[in-house]
Amino acid sequence: MTFTDLDGVFGHAIHCGIKESALDLSYIYIPNAVASAGVYTQNKFLASSVSFTKKCDKRHTLKAMIINSGNANAATGKQGEKNTKRLAQLTASYLGLNTVEVGVAATGIIGKQLPMECIEKGLPTLFENIHEKNGEKVTQAILTTDLVEKSVTKSMKIGKKTITVSGITKGSGMMAPNMATTLAFIVCNVSLNNKQLQRCLSKAVQYSYNMMSVDTDTSTNDMLMCFATGQYNISSDKDQMNMFQELLTEVCIDLAKLIAKDGEGATKLISVEVKRASSYRDAQIIAKNVIDSPLVKTAIHGEDPNWGRIMMAIGKDESVKLNPNKVSIFIGQQCLFENGEPIHCDLTNVKKELANNDVNIIIDCALGKGQAKGWGCDLTKGYIEINTEYN
Amino acid sequence: MTFTDLDGVFGHAIHCGIKESALDLSYIYIPNAVASAGVYTQNKFLASSVSFTKKCDKRHTLKAMIINSGNANAATGKQGEKNTKRLAQLTASYLGLNTVEVGVAATGIIGKQLPMECIEKGLPTLFENIHEKNGEKVTQAILTTDLVEKSVTKSMKIGKKTITVSGITKGSGMMAPNMATTLAFIVCNVSLNNKQLQRCLSKAVQYSYNMMSVDTDTSTNDMLMCFATGQYNISSDKDQMNMFQELLTEVCIDLAKLIAKDGEGATKLISVEVKRASSYRDAQIIAKNVIDSPLVKTAIHGEDPNWGRIMMAIGKDESVKLNPNKVSIFIGQQCLFENGEPIHCDLTNVKKELANNDVNIIIDCALGKGQAKGWGCDLTKGYIEINTEYN
Repeated sequence: MTFTDLDGVFGHAIHCGIKESALDLSYIYIPNAVASAGVYTQNKFLASSVSFTKKCDKRHTLKAMIINSGNANAATGKQGEKNTKRLAQLTASYLGLNTVEVGVAATGIIGKQLPMECIEKGLPTLFENIHEKNGEKVTQAILTTDLVEKSVTKSMKIGKKTITVSGITKGSGMMAPNMATTLAFIVCNVSLNNKQLQRCLSKAVQYSYNMMSVDTDTSTNDMLMCFATGQYNISSDKDQMNMFQELLTEVCIDLAKLIAKDGEGATKLISVEVKRASSYRDAQIIAKNVIDSPLVKTAIHGEDPNWGRIMMAIGKDESVKLNPNKVSIFIGQQCLFENGEPIHCDLTNVKKELANNDVNIIIDCALGKGQAKGWGCDLTKGYIEINTEYN
Repeated sequence: MTFTDLDGVFGHAIHCGIKESALDLSYIYIPNAVASAGVYTQNKFLASSVSFTKKCDKRHTLKAMIINSGNANAATGKQGEKNTKRLAQLTASYLGLNTVEVGVAATGIIGKQLPMECIEKGLPTLFENIHEKNGEKVTQAILTTDLVEKSVTKSMKIGKKTITVSGITKGSGMMAPNMATTLAFIVCNVSLNNKQLQRCLSKAVQYSYNMMSVDTDTSTNDMLMCFATGQYNISSDKDQMNMFQELLTEVCIDLAKLIAKDGEGATKLISVEVKRASSYRDAQIIAKNVIDSPLVKTAIHGEDPNWGRIMMAIGKDESVKLNPNKVSIFIGQQCLFENGEPIHCDLTNVKKELANNDVNIIIDCALGKGQAKGWGCDLTKGYIEINTEYN
């Protein structure tokens, strides 16, 4: 199932020539959207697609996205801004919308102008039928160095209605979201206003995209957009709203994990759970420092139970409250460090855990009530290869 | 020239069996030291060598260091603490000092107990002559994954005296100092008290070790110790003190650059200079974010003038004040981005610059008076290899 399976949601993609041969230009169109919300990269060098979409989304309900991959249209100065606006204008005219109802997203290399000629040549084909239901093609068309398509759909019975949240995402490198990063587009068949949807989305992102990192770098371009089709009203019931929040957060977590698992060069998804930290903030920092540590990432790639590096990463931030004599470290089920002392144990089981594609690390601080989860991936020669040769 | 060439400074090293065959146990002995100062890792999991030395250094003037490499004696619980104390006691008795006048330093793998038996067997040989002048051997004996020995000596005529600052250091991975990290030992032939020396050392570290990073990871073990032999009095003259500060900072910068250049797997030293940032703090953050970015590091390894990644790293921290339309980015002499627009230029010269072992990046924010320099290295398959197979 994909997001265009929802009533009133359309999408299509083509290859127009930004990339050599893959799909690179797509639209998402929700003519009757009742609400839209977005979270955007915090990088100070905003791509013009981000500043344009942010501005529209602030005052209006977006009803469509035009998305290109292969070129970020970032650091492209005034010409880049003009190109973004022109893309929105052309899309609006094809779809019969106002320009302020169209968001623009771009991803790819920084510092090169968009090849507008081939994009403009492609638009008539892209919009030949504005009611296409080709969600799978859009899912492919937003990818760059990704190896797999990333799509999550979940449904939940809320009251008597079947509420569905369906999203797609991309991202593999330059991937340490701050508020949001990466491209992601999520559709929900609920009726909410913009403020309500924004509140739900911001909360979902806090526990999902913001707790995922491939390489600590934060993109100039990325955005996570969410649309409500208006089908089912849930906003009048607090319990129903909480259930929707849970569903949306779950979808965002699953999308974020797909990104971490497909991190550039990655062979393993690393999940870190921090329990009983002094505060939620401390739990977050510890989880992030562990998933971001190159030495933890390379040890896990080598399937080496070198828990000393996990300990190093836990203690890295001087602002975190910790009692080293209370911390326990687990890899899978096996405790390796407890009460300030290493545990003497058979490492066979730990090595088995490390041989999996999914590696779980649990850190118990035994201090307070703060807990957090984070997701990352191993650091391999593949990452070096991809990023040494990119361009 | 090495540090034991200074009057009243002694040192020697042996192989006792912690490592397979290299030198692994050494001492530094300055019987008439008039002052000592130290900066220590900010990691919350302090190795017992760090907490022991810190405590002694706080109240007393240290006159000797006993240093082992190959085993960090970190995360080794109560037994580890006992071993550290015993090492200090034994060293003190060989040298005729009080235990509180001896510092202990250790570096190597985390989570394993020190092989005390072979260390204790080695001590009589190590201390056979406590007035050895084997600084070069000590320089070798403190290394772990380092490929080169790291020693810097500089002299300056201050008043009528020739003031000399001579230091050695080690470090190659787990290397993002915070206050201090790595092992470093510096000797100066001046007469200062502990407070004065500490003030000078802390300032020197702020502009040197704290502005250097190989992999963003912060060790549990590391310390930078500085000793004054008492030979020349400079503390009564403010100008002379300033000149000494300059000399000490220069030595610390040169030592820190040696570490960055010898970063695990590194082939290039990356120097980043940030000019006219809004504040010193902002300049520091920008310089650090550029040298720490895996995408900048891999691009430079690939000798790829992908300045978009430098721009991404400059903008990464949301707390930094920036006007993207004022920032200029240079690689070597060539400006690549200016006034919010990419510069169209011949990239041949930039590629030549990137082919060097030393790559210089200059970032001009055109905002204020903040300036900072930072040093890092490229990220290569060599780093992955070393750290996947460590243990």
